[in-house]
Amino acid sequence: MTTSQTDLAALLNREEAERELFELLRIPSVSADPTHAEDMGRAAGFLRAKLESLGFTARVDATEHGGKAGHPVVYAERQDVPGKPTVLIYGHYDVQPEAPVEEWVSPPFEPTVREGRIYARGSTDDKGQAYAHVRGVELLLSQGELPVNVKFLLEGEEEVGSPSLAAYLGAHADELKADVILISDGSRFAPDVPTVTYGLRGLSYVEILVQGANRDLHSGAYGGAAPNPINALAEIICGLKDEQGRVTIPGFYDGVEDLTPEEREMWARLPHSDEEFAASIGASALPGEEGYSTLERLWARPTLDVNGIWGGYQGEGSKTVIAAKAGAKVSMRLVPGQDPERITRLVQEYVPTIAPQGVKVEVRALHGGQPVKVDLDSPYIKAADRALQRVYGRPAAFARTGGSIPIVADFRRLLGAPVLLVDFGLNEDAPHSPNESFALEDYHNGILTSAYLLQELGE
Amino acid sequence: MTTSQTDLAALLNREEAERELFELLRIPSVSADPTHAEDMGRAAGFLRAKLESLGFTARVDATEHGGKAGHPVVYAERQDVPGKPTVLIYGHYDVQPEAPVEEWVSPPFEPTVREGRIYARGSTDDKGQAYAHVRGVELLLSQGELPVNVKFLLEGEEEVGSPSLAAYLGAHADELKADVILISDGSRFAPDVPTVTYGLRGLSYVEILVQGANRDLHSGAYGGAAPNPINALAEIICGLKDEQGRVTIPGFYDGVEDLTPEEREMWARLPHSDEEFAASIGASALPGEEGYSTLERLWARPTLDVNGIWGGYQGEGSKTVIAAKAGAKVSMRLVPGQDPERITRLVQEYVPTIAPQGVKVEVRALHGGQPVKVDLDSPYIKAADRALQRVYGRPAAFARTGGSIPIVADFRRLLGAPVLLVDFGLNEDAPHSPNESFALEDYHNGILTSAYLLQELGE
Repeated sequence: MTTSQTDLAALLNREEAERELFELLRIPSVSADPTHAEDMGRAAGFLRAKLESLGFTARVDATEHGGKAGHPVVYAERQDVPGKPTVLIYGHYDVQPEAPVEEWVSPPFEPTVREGRIYARGSTDDKGQAYAHVRGVELLLSQGELPVNVKFLLEGEEEVGSPSLAAYLGAHADELKADVILISDGSRFAPDVPTVTYGLRGLSYVEILVQGANRDLHSGAYGGAAPNPINALAEIICGLKDEQGRVTIPGFYDGVEDLTPEEREMWARLPHSDEEFAASIGASALPGEEGYSTLERLWARPTLDVNGIWGGYQGEGSKTVIAAKAGAKVSMRLVPGQDPERITRLVQEYVPTIAPQGVKVEVRALHGGQPVKVDLDSPYIKAADRALQRVYGRPAAFARTGGSIPIVADFRRLLGAPVLLVDFGLNEDAPHSPNESFALEDYHNGILTSAYLLQELGE
Repeated sequence: MTTSQTDLAALLNREEAERELFELLRIPSVSADPTHAEDMGRAAGFLRAKLESLGFTARVDATEHGGKAGHPVVYAERQDVPGKPTVLIYGHYDVQPEAPVEEWVSPPFEPTVREGRIYARGSTDDKGQAYAHVRGVELLLSQGELPVNVKFLLEGEEEVGSPSLAAYLGAHADELKADVILISDGSRFAPDVPTVTYGLRGLSYVEILVQGANRDLHSGAYGGAAPNPINALAEIICGLKDEQGRVTIPGFYDGVEDLTPEEREMWARLPHSDEEFAASIGASALPGEEGYSTLERLWARPTLDVNGIWGGYQGEGSKTVIAAKAGAKVSMRLVPGQDPERITRLVQEYVPTIAPQGVKVEVRALHGGQPVKVDLDSPYIKAADRALQRVYGRPAAFARTGGSIPIVADFRRLLGAPVLLVDFGLNEDAPHSPNESFALEDYHNGILTSAYLLQELGE
């Protein structure tokens, strides 16, 4: 009997897996807070030692960005099986700040189990999910050799935007070479739904600046003749979308991959209720592009949202001013087939054509990110499906997510390998919030999923 | 030979008139700055003493608003000629703060003459213009008795919004009774154009608040389905005006008094250049309601301007947030025939009907003011025209102004008398700015105009 036929569930050492994770969770590795610099080193050292104990060649690498020292990366590898695929497992050991600490029922860095859930900062994001892979590898090793070559890349700056990661990936591209990159740093679609995430939206984020007169003017003396940059900005924003919620920038939809009938059917079967979704955010309606369901709009359709706007008088009471300037932050979520640089250029070309008379406009590119989609027919996706079936006894849901994970695009760009997103957490774990938690069952299912998935990838 | 036939110009004591005004200008009566409380009292005392020396019954009255002490009012009267009209002259002895003081070429409270102009804070606004009336009365008294009954009301809070004035007017309504109220606290149309201002626009000022979800949302996770209050606010703002620059609120134009062909002709003859006007504010165009000239749009047409807007992320760089709330300050300048309360109600009724799905809107009334127009055929207007002809040797221009002067509506409402606006200053005097100035010639012409106008009003 090979390990691939073993029922690994029976072999789980739950107590030990929990004890070790709790030890890691007790280290307050808050990357945003300089007073925790020593804790960052402790958490990295803990992981290196653990991976070394599993026979990995492991080290803690210093990082830097723009001449500034970053938090260290833990890198480890076991290349035991030449000819078998190499799997790079990414995770992060840093956590969000714990504030507001008074809202925590139990201390954020003293993991506490209540009703089958581990309450602690980092329990789901991402210490718990990352450590599930460490224990998954350990589980396999307890049965024999690893079915694939495994590399771990565990960073300490994810919660502050991974500023050193791209440079690190670039500098270590050869060493990090892999056939597939495995990440568990998000949420499954719903409690009873094992999920493979196969798509992320991209992003084009711009700032629109509008200038009217060369100084603020009195709205009495000038109202009716002076250009008003706030009114002009509102017109520009209105001109970016039509009444059907479609973006009107010429060429915006060129190349957008249509949803396949199979995807639409698949998503229609997911347990989703518009009423519950709207209620969860306290909204009276869910406006958006006509002709698409909510999940389709969130996952597979590009959008345009104003993320910020300013101009003129924002204080109490009234001031009769016509501002000289106004501005807005506008972002477009992009989908496969769209290129952020091209979209940003289209916006920069279009906005001046719809600006009303008398104002000057400038569109500044602020940020971009490539959309990502993994082919549903890829062997990696199919391996993940089979692994999840073995753990959960039911087929996986293939979902996308509306957000962007910048590091995913970095991995694809700098390492050239496909990314496999298999999440163990849930939205209800409340990552980034007080009382972050991770269900014990989800942790142990994560360990099992990791082990089965590495087996499946080795087949 | 009666004084009305005298050439008063020959009788001007220019030196003395300047010396006295300079004395007043040296008192830093900055109403906004509590450290100048004593200076306020000194300025009031100076005026009371001067008016007493001219035979007026004069006093300094304490004021208050909302239980708080205000700056004093100087009140003085000479009721010498029963049966003749009573003229109430309004002015203010308080001045704007002098900041930024480093931009002044000569000290703000040390009046200095350069190229025929008095440079000092308050020189034009309003010490110089108000004191011209004091000296105008003195000029008449030097020739005999006053041709009308004269009351002076010189307040000390104009630059902070006249918070105590309405209460003072209400409490002294009987005493302040007058046939006409004379105010010189603004600017003539152009250097060579003696001007009577016969109309002011009114105001309806509201705040529009838009709420989407019950909290800020991640634009990745929610973009495409969550209501966006900033986009919604932009749509609302766009829905308030059409492409011809007309306000689309139903009923908005009901009752608006049309310009007469005579007014349009009269204003078309004024020395105005759109190019120069646009250049003066650094604007590349002067957008506005189609079918009207710039002056017509500024003086006689209602407008709608957004005075402030806010929502979401306004900092550096990018934040992918869909804000829960957004807001804007919106004001409408009103013209004769429009009532501020009715207009505010119309806006409050209309905005919710154009708000997109999924957001809640609230329209708060912040501020209102009645438009004012004096009948061009009134005897007071004609008297002013004759007085100005005697001083300047040319007919007066009859202009309106786009702004509102709240005290003017208060005077009409609380004292029931028509208001006559005859300004001696110019925009280029730069009231409220560093290096405020007043041409000596304009000061002395103001004194003459005051004297001739009181004569004309007595005829």
